[in-house]
Amino acid sequence: MLKIFCDLTAEQETLTLLKQGVAPHEIIFPAKRAASVLSKSGPDPALADADIAFGQPDAAAILQASKLRWLHLSSAGYTRFDTPEFRKAAAEQKLIVTNSSVVYAEPCAEHVLAFMLAQARKLPDAIKAAAVGDFSSWLQLRTNSRLLRGETVLLLGFGSIARHLVALLRPFGMEMTALRRNSTGDEGVRIISKDVLLEELGKADHVVNILPASPASDRFVSSTQFAAMKKGAIFYNIGRGATVDQDALAAVLNSGHLAAAWLDVTEPEPLPPDHPLLAARNIFITPHLGGGRQNELETLVRHFLENFRRFLQGTPLHDRIM
Amino acid sequence: MLKIFCDLTAEQETLTLLKQGVAPHEIIFPAKRAASVLSKSGPDPALADADIAFGQPDAAAILQASKLRWLHLSSAGYTRFDTPEFRKAAAEQKLIVTNSSVVYAEPCAEHVLAFMLAQARKLPDAIKAAAVGDFSSWLQLRTNSRLLRGETVLLLGFGSIARHLVALLRPFGMEMTALRRNSTGDEGVRIISKDVLLEELGKADHVVNILPASPASDRFVSSTQFAAMKKGAIFYNIGRGATVDQDALAAVLNSGHLAAAWLDVTEPEPLPPDHPLLAARNIFITPHLGGGRQNELETLVRHFLENFRRFLQGTPLHDRIM
Repeated sequence: MLKIFCDLTAEQETLTLLKQGVAPHEIIFPAKRAASVLSKSGPDPALADADIAFGQPDAAAILQASKLRWLHLSSAGYTRFDTPEFRKAAAEQKLIVTNSSVVYAEPCAEHVLAFMLAQARKLPDAIKAAAVGDFSSWLQLRTNSRLLRGETVLLLGFGSIARHLVALLRPFGMEMTALRRNSTGDEGVRIISKDVLLEELGKADHVVNILPASPASDRFVSSTQFAAMKKGAIFYNIGRGATVDQDALAAVLNSGHLAAAWLDVTEPEPLPPDHPLLAARNIFITPHLGGGRQNELETLVRHFLENFRRFLQGTPLHDRIM
Repeated sequence: MLKIFCDLTAEQETLTLLKQGVAPHEIIFPAKRAASVLSKSGPDPALADADIAFGQPDAAAILQASKLRWLHLSSAGYTRFDTPEFRKAAAEQKLIVTNSSVVYAEPCAEHVLAFMLAQARKLPDAIKAAAVGDFSSWLQLRTNSRLLRGETVLLLGFGSIARHLVALLRPFGMEMTALRRNSTGDEGVRIISKDVLLEELGKADHVVNILPASPASDRFVSSTQFAAMKKGAIFYNIGRGATVDQDALAAVLNSGHLAAAWLDVTEPEPLPPDHPLLAARNIFITPHLGGGRQNELETLVRHFLENFRRFLQGTPLHDRIM
């Protein structure tokens, strides 16, 4: 009988799905549940008893849970766990760590494409204009509206979100390139390395940042990268806010060098009301909902259950990160 | 030497492309040019001399131009020409009529997909919410945001726009159905006929109206059709405004039966400021810019030139409507 610690806050129906899915093994809950799949809960004594943890438990408490064999995170991001200390301790304890990136990859890909098409079709301005009936501004909007077909997109980072996005973009006939450290050859797009990034930035109509947060990606997209982008390019961020120099982004928007930016993530979230990005030209921000989907918690639970089945069978787990 | 009457208003560069493309044949211009590709010009004496007309000439004047062998319209719509009288006279004069639907099909398809994704990802509300930083409304938006994947779409009408849209939607794995009078079997989606429409409307998460204006399609989508739609469905119109009973649409939005409507076309355009649609719940209107694209006029001219080459060779013309 395995004990599975779960700090996921979900409706009764979803928790029942989880309990029935693991039976006869047992789910144990913390005293206090977290507010969302992204908030971490504090250390919890119930962890000491657990063989498996599912949710967003405290990183230090995980390393003190001596029985624990597998941690399954309910998020795609895992910054709190991505430290040399945690990796070393997890390796010593033979702790398997998986995340839920596949659950969020598809909605994030649809979210980026929503950004790209809303920009191409001028939706924010067009929706405001329609009620007014000023024909000359209508003609201007029509003249300025674009097709994605034939345009060039550069993806910064190539993981699960990028794979889904590439599949959605395929019928648009765009020229697609991606920055990736180690190409596996199965990406279906041209892969470039960091040493030619500045040159490639100059060719892209759309630059999509999908980089996760890490010490190596901190402010990776800086004033140098923005300056190298084509005049009139559009910048998107569906990764993490910390990977972008946001003051530099505000500057290239206000100078008119970039035509627009669409961000689902910022650093911090929310931005303080006096942050320069909020006042920048042609900036569109959504509040970190790229991963949102109908039945999000149910999908997270089903993903965990699929991995649980694999764990019991001894077959490799999906979305393994350590 | 053929004479080609052209009432298209375009920049010098585009007109040069046209002149060079038809040389040694001759372009003749009207005294007064139309304001856009959609506005018709009045009767023009220059037409009497023309072998070919390209643009939006007056329908009555076309029938009086006894030398005319081919009319190429610069629009996808051709309501003014789609009358029994015009069709009969055109047939008697052996007048070929083509339109520019292929030029507008791709942007219209991208425009509808922009609508569908903006709705699924809650862009209008999300962009407003991000600047505020109210976490509970953020969570609500995230919970309400959806995936197109796995949802059901019903297309009303199946022509050039629908073919492009189906190609763009293919990687989303949606269930796709289309209403079409005469199926050719190559649509790539399930085709239904009018007698099962009400039943099919009850299954669709997304209803996309692509019907052209004609006496048969006038207010085709009426209160009966709206009532038959699934509760929470979303209605889109990229065809023509006259095909929809707009008062009925306002009513099903306000009652909450439909979750939202996204329209690129209305009747009239613009709507009068006191029109009930403008005050309806969850209505999003763009001002007839679905067909807009970068280099629209250049693309129209290139499409005409391709057909002109075919006309000279005696091969079948693209987008022939009569």
